[in-house]
Parts: sequence; C-alpha cells; structure tokens
Amino acid sequence: MKIKKNIKRLLLYRLCLVKFKEMGFKKVYSYNLGHEAGVSAEQIRKDFSQFGITGNKKGGYDIEYLLERLNHIFKKNEHQKVIIVGMGNMGYALSHYECGFTETKKYIVAGFDIDPMKIKMTYNIPVFPMNVLRTYIREHNIRIAILAVPAISAQEVCAKLVVCGIKGIMNFSPVILQVPDDVIVNNVNLCDELECIMHMVDPVDNPPTGE
Amino acid sequence: MKIKKNIKRLLLYRLCLVKFKEMGFKKVYSYNLGHEAGVSAEQIRKDFSQFGITGNKKGGYDIEYLLERLNHIFKKNEHQKVIIVGMGNMGYALSHYECGFTETKKYIVAGFDIDPMKIKMTYNIPVFPMNVLRTYIREHNIRIAILAVPAISAQEVCAKLVVCGIKGIMNFSPVILQVPDDVIVNNVNLCDELECIMHMVDPVDNPPTGE
Repeated sequence: MKIKKNIKRLLLYRLCLVKFKEMGFKKVYSYNLGHEAGVSAEQIRKDFSQFGITGNKKGGYDIEYLLERLNHIFKKNEHQKVIIVGMGNMGYALSHYECGFTETKKYIVAGFDIDPMKIKMTYNIPVFPMNVLRTYIREHNIRIAILAVPAISAQEVCAKLVVCGIKGIMNFSPVILQVPDDVIVNNVNLCDELECIMHMVDPVDNPPTGE
Repeated sequence: MKIKKNIKRLLLYRLCLVKFKEMGFKKVYSYNLGHEAGVSAEQIRKDFSQFGITGNKKGGYDIEYLLERLNHIFKKNEHQKVIIVGMGNMGYALSHYECGFTETKKYIVAGFDIDPMKIKMTYNIPVFPMNVLRTYIREHNIRIAILAVPAISAQEVCAKLVVCGIKGIMNFSPVILQVPDDVIVNNVNLCDELECIMHMVDPVDNPPTGE
C-alpha cells in the first residue's frame, strides 16, 4: 500500500501555514496556500473539506484554526512507537533527528543492527541485535520501522519485519520492496531526490532550463 | 521553482525496472510498470514518449533499453558538484551516503559548518567554515547545495547560498524556504514522511484503514 497523497499534502500545507503565521498573517485564501504548496486552490479546498476543515470563500481560512485542525488530525501519531533497523550513519542520524511540530516528539524507541560494535556504542536509543527483533516488536506493539540497511539486505530484512507484524516501513534503501497489500511503504530515496535537482540545474554558467 | 514531477517519476521507474530486471524479466508492459510505480499506464507511456523513449504496444518495452535510456537522461548529472551546509548528524550521514546507479558516484565535494569542532573532525570530505563559503562556491562553480542546518537558521543560510550563486537546494530543514524564481528547492522533510506512515498505521491491534 502506498502513502495517501492527500495526507502528504496536509503536512505540506501545515509547513506553509507555519511560514505564513511567522510572516504575520492571520488569514489565508486557498489560492495563496495553493501557490505556496504547488497545488490548485480547488485541491486545497477539496482536501480541507475531506477532513472536515471549513473556510469562508470571502474571508478565507483562519490560520490558527487550520493549524489546530491539522495538528489534531496528526495527534493520534503521538501513540506510535518506531524502530530503526540498520544503525549505520543514516540510522544514527535518524535516531537523533528532532521531530515534532508543537513540541519535540520522540517516536523512535529502539534500533537494531547485525554489527556487534553498534550494539556496544552509546546511542540515544537502545540498540539491540537482530535476534531479539521479533520479541521486541511483539512486546512493545511496534507497528512501524525505519529501514536503513544496505540495498543488498533490504528485501530480506523487510520480509523479517513483515513476519514480525510491522505494518508501516519508511524505506531509505534504494530498492523497491515487495510487501503484502496491508503493509505501507514510504520510500525515501535521497540519491534520487538529489538527482532531481541536479538534472534541473545546469552545471555550467547558463541559467537553468525552465518548466 | 519546484521539482518537475515527470523527472521524479522517471527515477522511480528506473528503480522499478531494476527490480524487474533482478526478477529475471526482459520486457515490461506499461501497465506492469505503472502498477509497480503507482501511476497509470497512460502516464508511463506519456513520460517515456516525452523523453524520446519508444516501445511497442504488443511487445511492451525492453527493460535493458529503458534502463540505458534513463541512465543517459541522468548522465549529465555526473558533472555536478554538491556541497553540504550543516555538518551535524544528518550532514555527516549524507556525506557518507553512497549514491550512484551504475557505479558509485561522489557528487558531494565539501561541507560547511559554523562549529569549529566540525571543521577539525575527520570527515570523508573537507569541511570548511562558513566565512569561505562564497569563495569556494565561486572557485568550484558549485550550483547545488544540501541544506542540513537547524530550522531557525535555514532561511538565513539559504539566502547566503542564493547570493553566492547556488541554483538548486536540497532542503532537510523543516521550513518552507523563500527563494527567487530561478532557484529550485527540493524539500525532504523526514519528520513529515514518518508522520505519513504513522497516520496510516493503526497503533493498536486493528488492521490499517484502507484507501
């Protein structure tokens, strides 16, 4: 199962709204927000309406109200516990990544790795060997894992996670994972994200090619 | 300027094609590839056609041919040099991130940070203080920067990069950046990517809500 695009858009809107709020705005029209987010005003209104968020065609949306409603939609996330599998440089960076919108949230509760050296090192989360993965997931009701292992082991580790009951995977490995239909995968391919920009920017002293 | 969606899709197709190739397939139909990538068969054909990639309605596309054409489209990226600004945990992880499709590419040539301690540490790329940023960018014709600084300094550092001639920014800071129209920003918000999955996966023993 893939990430729902409307959920992704709501999070983008939230970022845009924070920016508008910091600029001193109290209200926003759907076309302003749409322009900032790169979507049509119609899409904005449709997304908000789908989640029970109302506005006023003449007056626009109240920014504080929007932020409150958006935070409420994602409030249930507070109960989630997440593990990282693969505690290399990326896993380490992610374990220290500050998340949270209204406050700092600590979703990530543990890391796992096959390398005994990583298990001995001091991280800000406990790091366990792979042989206790299943026990940990079941004892702590973990549903979500971040996969930050080399490409060559990604599918195998993914299969293990699915067998252990994981239902959501944030995948940093540059492979397309095979998962059952009820497992959600969010692929984050940092190399491809970089390739996108590189492709659009001319490396020499010419202006970049426009849309 | 935002990332062109068709470019992002081509990179996704490439990942899917690598998977098919590893599974032993020689040919692929647009509907197979579309199903894997989460887009319509029509979109696949339209994207390929736009980039001069041809297929055969009855026989489908030859996978090796597709991969060769896709690699060719992104071959010009080999000449790009990229810097990282902000050498915290994420900057460090990114400086070690192996990129490359046919071979390992080293796009990232230098890092910058305000913290003198980071400049003394051994990284696999040279790390310089911010006061030499402009000189370095100009001397090395750098067009692309990865921004991995705290949210509070992101806009200020972004403005510096733009003044120095940067035309593409991969932004890891959770803020919407203000840039001139000719500067491309690719936002990578890892917290929001995680929030997406968390929202879609029920933290208790219920099956996740479907589309």
